[in-house]
Amino acid sequence: MSTAPIGIFDSGIGGLTVAGAIRKLLPNESTVYFGDTARVPYGPKSPDTVRRYAREILAWLLQQDVKAVVVACNTVTAHALDELRERSPVPVIGVIEPGARAAVSATATGVVGVIGTAGTVASGAYRIALQKIRPDVRVMEQACPLLVPLVEEGWFDHEATRLIADEYLQPLRRHGIDVLVLGCTHYPMLKSLLHRVVGDDVRLIDSAAETAGELAHVLNEMGIAAPANSAPTQRWVASDDAARFAKVGAVFMGGSPAPVELVDLGQVKEASSTRESSTTA
Amino acid sequence: MSTAPIGIFDSGIGGLTVAGAIRKLLPNESTVYFGDTARVPYGPKSPDTVRRYAREILAWLLQQDVKAVVVACNTVTAHALDELRERSPVPVIGVIEPGARAAVSATATGVVGVIGTAGTVASGAYRIALQKIRPDVRVMEQACPLLVPLVEEGWFDHEATRLIADEYLQPLRRHGIDVLVLGCTHYPMLKSLLHRVVGDDVRLIDSAAETAGELAHVLNEMGIAAPANSAPTQRWVASDDAARFAKVGAVFMGGSPAPVELVDLGQVKEASSTRESSTTA
Repeated sequence: MSTAPIGIFDSGIGGLTVAGAIRKLLPNESTVYFGDTARVPYGPKSPDTVRRYAREILAWLLQQDVKAVVVACNTVTAHALDELRERSPVPVIGVIEPGARAAVSATATGVVGVIGTAGTVASGAYRIALQKIRPDVRVMEQACPLLVPLVEEGWFDHEATRLIADEYLQPLRRHGIDVLVLGCTHYPMLKSLLHRVVGDDVRLIDSAAETAGELAHVLNEMGIAAPANSAPTQRWVASDDAARFAKVGAVFMGGSPAPVELVDLGQVKEASSTRESSTTA
Repeated sequence: MSTAPIGIFDSGIGGLTVAGAIRKLLPNESTVYFGDTARVPYGPKSPDTVRRYAREILAWLLQQDVKAVVVACNTVTAHALDELRERSPVPVIGVIEPGARAAVSATATGVVGVIGTAGTVASGAYRIALQKIRPDVRVMEQACPLLVPLVEEGWFDHEATRLIADEYLQPLRRHGIDVLVLGCTHYPMLKSLLHRVVGDDVRLIDSAAETAGELAHVLNEMGIAAPANSAPTQRWVASDDAARFAKVGAVFMGGSPAPVELVDLGQVKEASSTRESSTTA
């Protein structure tokens, strides 16, 4: 048992859907969410740049004495998960593997659709993860760059959103997918609209919920889940523009904006391979 | 007369509409375009952060021996133009004043609409510039965060784009605007669609074209325009992901992608107040 917090991070606010799923599934756990709003978005950045940013954030989270780290960002998971796991003394959970496992379990036709940002699709991370579990699965990927800004505008149920989703998803439907992985942390906010667009025959896989399930599994297996009588706390931290983070965060998490702390990562040294040296750096 | 290049910069690729307008109006001039694609977008970042980035880019452009600098970015113009002008030994031209002057000349009703990113609208920069020229002008501003990603997708004439533009522009039309300032460097790509949405009674002001006109005026006035027999060169420089810059750049500029240089600004010191010290830094 441990009351230490879970560290969750994303390039911005999208990972809040993962934080929300964790809060729902594991209400006794304390969390520290870090959104790197000063450097969002990571998608168009080079893998080396993304890895450097991820190491800096890992170092900062370890300074907060987290007992596990959830990489609530598809771009970071695609480029940096292995390196973060090597450097971290605590377990590191990404958003790709849990969704891929759920998709392989759910498909009957063996044709799986994946939607994500341009960066995630270009990385081929879901295709690799899916075919590692089941080599003969056919993966149809589609980049949907307009869905993130539509979510951030709050246009969850707008006719323009439906038109755009329809245009993106038509080719996947023609290929006979029976499962669609929402491969971007923003997309769970569009779940009901996407469900209407693809129809009842296509099962949607919500990576945020699957990742929360994987975290629960790891905490239990390692015996570090919080006790039932814990008094959990939630910290929200951003590297820039706390006001916008609080506003969009409230749309994502429901309820009114919570106080957001501002942290300048310029002062944080990179994570080294042991917790001791990174917390004293 | 001078054959030194014009420095043009933006947080990303949007400023290429300004570069295109400059190339069209001033075909004898050499240019160096810097797109800070490693740190795009600037809109959600704090004014202090934007000013720091702008100082770094100015220092780099001065190292390239530019004879003038065009800030082809509304966010940087709003937050940093005065400071850049103080620090620069060469003239610095922003995108806001030229558009504001053209709008005031064009309006008969005295009601001017301005569309831009959330950051530009929140800064009030156009309102301030417009009312400085004509204090009694009424300014109706509207943030249109979805238009930039639609342009970057190349959906210049899509039904979804029309629906979204219509939703953004309805309130401005109800207020009786007769001029609409395209207060974002991406928007000239949507000029014909926006014209259809607002109708013939509303004159569109293209900030890119107005800024090119202002540059021509300054070069002539200072006697530093390139001679007619010059052999102009165009350099394209980005701080990350040159491939995407080249691809989207080709959509913006027409023609096939040009070679894009990659420059890491981490190595560049900030601009100091004289050219000598910044080029030797």
